[in-house]
Amino acid sequence: MKNKLYFNANNTKEEQRAFEAIVKEQETVGYYALPNQDVSPILEYCNTISQDVTTIAVIGIGGSSLGAKAVYEFMKPVKELSRKLYFFESTDPINITDLLSKFDVKTTHFLVISKSGSTVETFSIYKYIYSLQSDPSAYTFITDPGSPLEKYAQSIKASVLHLPDNVGGRFSVLSSVGLVPLALCGIDIISLLAGAKKIKSSFFDNGYTQDMLLNKAVYYAKNHAQYNINCIFAYSETLKYFCQWYVQLWGESLGKHQRHSAFHVGLTPIGLIGPKDQHSFLQLIMEGTRDKSVTFIKIEDFHEDIVIPDITLPHLEMLDTLNNLPFSKLINMQCDSVVEALLDQESIPLDTITLQSVTEDNIGSLIFYYELLTSLVGELIDVNTYDQPGVEAGKIILKKKLG
Amino acid sequence: MKNKLYFNANNTKEEQRAFEAIVKEQETVGYYALPNQDVSPILEYCNTISQDVTTIAVIGIGGSSLGAKAVYEFMKPVKELSRKLYFFESTDPINITDLLSKFDVKTTHFLVISKSGSTVETFSIYKYIYSLQSDPSAYTFITDPGSPLEKYAQSIKASVLHLPDNVGGRFSVLSSVGLVPLALCGIDIISLLAGAKKIKSSFFDNGYTQDMLLNKAVYYAKNHAQYNINCIFAYSETLKYFCQWYVQLWGESLGKHQRHSAFHVGLTPIGLIGPKDQHSFLQLIMEGTRDKSVTFIKIEDFHEDIVIPDITLPHLEMLDTLNNLPFSKLINMQCDSVVEALLDQESIPLDTITLQSVTEDNIGSLIFYYELLTSLVGELIDVNTYDQPGVEAGKIILKKKLG
Repeated sequence: MKNKLYFNANNTKEEQRAFEAIVKEQETVGYYALPNQDVSPILEYCNTISQDVTTIAVIGIGGSSLGAKAVYEFMKPVKELSRKLYFFESTDPINITDLLSKFDVKTTHFLVISKSGSTVETFSIYKYIYSLQSDPSAYTFITDPGSPLEKYAQSIKASVLHLPDNVGGRFSVLSSVGLVPLALCGIDIISLLAGAKKIKSSFFDNGYTQDMLLNKAVYYAKNHAQYNINCIFAYSETLKYFCQWYVQLWGESLGKHQRHSAFHVGLTPIGLIGPKDQHSFLQLIMEGTRDKSVTFIKIEDFHEDIVIPDITLPHLEMLDTLNNLPFSKLINMQCDSVVEALLDQESIPLDTITLQSVTEDNIGSLIFYYELLTSLVGELIDVNTYDQPGVEAGKIILKKKLG
Repeated sequence: MKNKLYFNANNTKEEQRAFEAIVKEQETVGYYALPNQDVSPILEYCNTISQDVTTIAVIGIGGSSLGAKAVYEFMKPVKELSRKLYFFESTDPINITDLLSKFDVKTTHFLVISKSGSTVETFSIYKYIYSLQSDPSAYTFITDPGSPLEKYAQSIKASVLHLPDNVGGRFSVLSSVGLVPLALCGIDIISLLAGAKKIKSSFFDNGYTQDMLLNKAVYYAKNHAQYNINCIFAYSETLKYFCQWYVQLWGESLGKHQRHSAFHVGLTPIGLIGPKDQHSFLQLIMEGTRDKSVTFIKIEDFHEDIVIPDITLPHLEMLDTLNNLPFSKLINMQCDSVVEALLDQESIPLDTITLQSVTEDNIGSLIFYYELLTSLVGELIDVNTYDQPGVEAGKIILKKKLG
């Protein structure tokens, strides 16, 4: 993974302060340790699931689904996977019925994932699916130790796995929450963690990533009143769900009251996919209000490349310049052209990230890069990156309505 | 369709000015007339496509695909459709290969849609697919009259349909661009237009929609420096692609240099899906910077409803309040709870839109409502709503790179 910034925060003091805070945070925040974990218990557990199981279905929402979905959808088009993976993330009845029509409940293993063990969406859906499949061996529950959900699971003699300590939902993709569904589908979780570990080392051990991340975080924090919108513009459809994961990570971590003031702060995340969104959002970046920073993500090697055939279409000869061009080259030329066009404009902070290929290792790196960036920006704009008190009010009102 | 605003612009003079401008715009801007068009030529054309064709594939990008996709994905889970519909919208080689693996090229009819007739993405993909299927009768081309693409289509004796005059891509869903693929799949395009016509009448003939739209447009325009982000929060997975259509419509229409100044302006669109994004973006709305307005969209009647079973889970008895609740009721209670929680906050402008059910008529209304809102806001913030000059620079650079 490469990263090139076209801006410079020029503030080594703030960089130093942020770095020290993150080094210290490792003592209390759990996600930093995940790349170094021993995954053999997870792999052993996965081996106990019968080979007759052809489908894995995650019942979980937000942090319990977005991470695994990002990695699965990134790898699915390029890798022969051993099982299909579905996600029940909505109480929309049309969506539940539609999903259930796509696979056979009898050959499916369900992963019920809820940190607190009382998420309304997850348990509404679980109750419904339980009415269709009441065999406890068809379920694994992933939750915090001692939660009511763990007690329930034990009472029906179903399997329970734990979340590691102090790992919040949106930082949990590299824990059991993400690794179990992914490993069950044949994703190489050892490579995934190896990719994350590379970024971790490069950040903490004074490597290349440290410069990039500190500079970028300080720039975003320092200018957050002007640039209140941060876009990822990823040039591959495989990164669509990564963008959704990023939106949760960024938005829920950084949209807060400041710790030492009464101010509302927050940077708004937007996920875009190129070249499609050149025909949608690009106009707004190019000519709209100067309130956006943009990170372009490119993939160097697309594995399954195809080539534009050497065909001349009468009256459309001007398109012959496309002939014999591999699509992978075209899509990256499109990205480069948009970057160049934006660099000609004033006041649009840009950077580019290049992934070498569509592998577990690369997506693991990208995930950990964004987790570190989020922690750094949260520290710099003075918020608690790891809580989400703003979602409680709606839950309390719903509870009252339910009576 | 119902719409309730929790804010008030209180500016009848600006409302009047915007209304008059839009009434006048009907003389030159084509989309306003689309709800009143005679669709019999489109339906007749669709009847000429063989019953052996089981799949329709659109080769088009941006305005050539997003509208049809929004309507198709809205209706697909609730309606028995006659054919499947796929969209080739990316030059990502993994995506092209993946899509082609999902259907049989031999029983597919391809709709090649390009207004200008020279879109790089569309023709790269077309050339590739043409190398797999060279029978001209497998293609219909939709383009502007007299374009090089029309001449090409005529030279190979393939069918050509035209876009109506003065209808830009992002306003074209109710023209041949959207109606042909939708009708070919069994979507009731007459109802779709009837829904649009209801909103049109209600707006231009002094109805209920006029008050709502004018008030809302003036509020958004007047406060656009503070509220530079406009969110749709739709409580149904069926509206996912509607949100993408809205993002293009809003972003590309409103992100501009002002007509009478050198200022960059623009309102940033964001599409959210509930309840999923309660576990992602809601925290940022609730506690983050006060830079967002939010429109909640609810569906009253979900057709295929299912009920949470009357099951008590040991240790999870607190969840028994969910028992016997239809999911449709739960999802709407979730929406109402979040709206109430946000109304308790200061400085978050909210409104709610309620669709009665998942029908062509309802999505037609919603589409036309948003088109009118976009035109009104564009007029009020002093931009040319219908051009997109900012996307040209990247195209010119790409052309140079291609040599």
